[in-house]
Amino acid sequence: MPLLVMKFGGTSVATLDRIRRAAKRVGREVANGYDVIVIVSAMSGKTNELVGWVRETAPMFDAREYDAVVSSGEQVTAGLMALTLQEMDVPARSWQGWQVPLKTTSAHGAARIVDIPTDNLTEKFNDGMKVAVVAGFQGIGDDGRVTTLGRGGSDTTAVAFAAAFGADRCDIYTDVDGVYTTDPRIVRKARKLDRIAFEEMLELASLGAKVLQTRSVELAMRYKVKLRVLSSFEDNDENAGTLVCAEEDIVESNVVAGVAYSRDEAKVTLISVADRPGIAAAIFGPLSEAGVNVDMIVQNISEEGRTDMTFSCPVDEVTRAEAAVQAAKDAGHINYHDLVADEGVAKVSIVGIGMRSHAGVAAQMFKALSDEGINIKVITTSEIKVSVLIDRKYMELAVQALHDVFGLERAA
Amino acid sequence: MPLLVMKFGGTSVATLDRIRRAAKRVGREVANGYDVIVIVSAMSGKTNELVGWVRETAPMFDAREYDAVVSSGEQVTAGLMALTLQEMDVPARSWQGWQVPLKTTSAHGAARIVDIPTDNLTEKFNDGMKVAVVAGFQGIGDDGRVTTLGRGGSDTTAVAFAAAFGADRCDIYTDVDGVYTTDPRIVRKARKLDRIAFEEMLELASLGAKVLQTRSVELAMRYKVKLRVLSSFEDNDENAGTLVCAEEDIVESNVVAGVAYSRDEAKVTLISVADRPGIAAAIFGPLSEAGVNVDMIVQNISEEGRTDMTFSCPVDEVTRAEAAVQAAKDAGHINYHDLVADEGVAKVSIVGIGMRSHAGVAAQMFKALSDEGINIKVITTSEIKVSVLIDRKYMELAVQALHDVFGLERAA
Repeated sequence: MPLLVMKFGGTSVATLDRIRRAAKRVGREVANGYDVIVIVSAMSGKTNELVGWVRETAPMFDAREYDAVVSSGEQVTAGLMALTLQEMDVPARSWQGWQVPLKTTSAHGAARIVDIPTDNLTEKFNDGMKVAVVAGFQGIGDDGRVTTLGRGGSDTTAVAFAAAFGADRCDIYTDVDGVYTTDPRIVRKARKLDRIAFEEMLELASLGAKVLQTRSVELAMRYKVKLRVLSSFEDNDENAGTLVCAEEDIVESNVVAGVAYSRDEAKVTLISVADRPGIAAAIFGPLSEAGVNVDMIVQNISEEGRTDMTFSCPVDEVTRAEAAVQAAKDAGHINYHDLVADEGVAKVSIVGIGMRSHAGVAAQMFKALSDEGINIKVITTSEIKVSVLIDRKYMELAVQALHDVFGLERAA
Repeated sequence: MPLLVMKFGGTSVATLDRIRRAAKRVGREVANGYDVIVIVSAMSGKTNELVGWVRETAPMFDAREYDAVVSSGEQVTAGLMALTLQEMDVPARSWQGWQVPLKTTSAHGAARIVDIPTDNLTEKFNDGMKVAVVAGFQGIGDDGRVTTLGRGGSDTTAVAFAAAFGADRCDIYTDVDGVYTTDPRIVRKARKLDRIAFEEMLELASLGAKVLQTRSVELAMRYKVKLRVLSSFEDNDENAGTLVCAEEDIVESNVVAGVAYSRDEAKVTLISVADRPGIAAAIFGPLSEAGVNVDMIVQNISEEGRTDMTFSCPVDEVTRAEAAVQAAKDAGHINYHDLVADEGVAKVSIVGIGMRSHAGVAAQMFKALSDEGINIKVITTSEIKVSVLIDRKYMELAVQALHDVFGLERAA
């Protein structure tokens, strides 16, 4: 029997009525001849409530207890979804993570999936069960305790099940109707993409387009799971949503697939760092240990034996970054004249697999920004992406200009 | 290490602040040198919310899914309680029912405890854990799915753990400070009992004094678990609350220990039933199958070969009872002239192990009611109890009169 994985996020199961609407979509796929594995999130707001209780109880909480508390939200939704399907005469039952069992590492609060044995669910499918409703975001560790995969882990759960069971497709139902060329709140002419390559989606996901969790896209790419993002609030036809798929499944595409941004960035420069082998490790090791998410890194030679080192990080991590670097200086591990933090920057990126075969895309980007009088502070590039840091006040303007210049409002 | 079981009901863990107060009590017992198993209910209101969702989703719900949903409430409290204890530097961890594992029958929604293996918890106690916080009311069935023990099952969980681990005592923390001679809302002079025998508590529990669940008292009696009921909202000294214990641990007691009542009863009489062997089974079999909780049964010979059969049941089950009896009549299994239901009665009972050795207690009760002009409609007696059905409007008056005549405001 062909099998489909369908994942419903928190807003898609926020009320009993929405659970019913989601169940109807599942019922339709069963009628189409599919066995279905449904992955559910907690009803929206529930996880935040539970996390709030944990944090209020114990600011430095035991992650194992955090997991025991927070995982309960998905269990409730899974039971309610199974009941709803049964009311529609669809043979269904719920599975908690430990019942599958979805085996994870014991890194509580941020566990990684180790294995999904398929025998338990397969046996029930063979017995006539049409839908297995699985509580997302959770599993069981070596220690026999409930683990969670970290926020957004339900997407990853869904892709992992699709990979383990060889599903025809993994449909992620959410509150947007697909992946756009950029944020439609910024560019009115932003266009929904029918298809996007895994690599592009990865760059977009990690750049702040909050449609899919990065890990879920990585996993889908590795196991070639066809991933579709679509709205649970609209009627969807055959071509609804956006299909995230392998590059070879995309016949024709724009050179640039999308423009991403990240608003609240900061640029930190250590001026006149004593340059010697291992200096980068001496700076970025302590930053990593302090939990600072360093993104771009640029090093300029400034004078003989000394260098300026610039990096970017989320603006709310600057204080921590400064403290970590200062501590490394106090300990004599590094030496610099001054630290300058610019907390008023944003990152804007263009992403597209077409860049690989098209020269001059970066130059075209820089010219477009220059034409708008926007100064570029830092540049980094990868094979399919160019990112720049600019003054935050120009962010919307930059996104619009780039969307225009690369003609993203029109399909290829 | 001596071991204590402490159980906290829903109102005792209704908020994070109350969980903290409960945790302090636990911490005090740890300081006294005990290892402690804490059994927690769901935060008050949570179970009702979950049950409401299940019923709204599926009026004829799959009890296995009901259990999956409803058991989540206790899991949340268990995690929060463990975190709270850890914050107080008390080594604690939470256990869900399936992790212990508390093994039950697979009668979902009303499962019975089959076994509580002690090795998992004992290993952790040996490793230095001082408190095991266990989610009450739940276990795991033969089918590998979560079961619940039915409402009030947390008391039963607590007693079962106390029995399995040979605990010194099982303390049930609740929103009343003990077991009273009768309901203080009806009789102002009602007195808290320091001790009460298991048998008396059983009669009081099943008669409507909603302090302890009947099954938990049965279990405590069978395994000789010392059971203490006390308030989680007051400072408790050595002699706080009420100790439910074996008869031989009570030195001196009143002949009558307490007066119980049940307000919403109905009396149903089948008039002129054709009397033959097996007629009682033919009537009460169908009632039992229809889920009618028949309480008192009285049979009077009325004429040659025919009899009147009277029974009592909760007033909201009368319709179901009438339908079941009518169906049995239609099927030709029984025959009667008429069915008369009196939905305006209440049950009042006196309970005391002292009755065994004191004659005339029932007569004294009947005289006291007669002196108040209260007509008795049905009488049943057991070794340590006399119950009567009377008009509901006289219920409070009857309870007061009996409390007075047996001198319950004074200790023996």
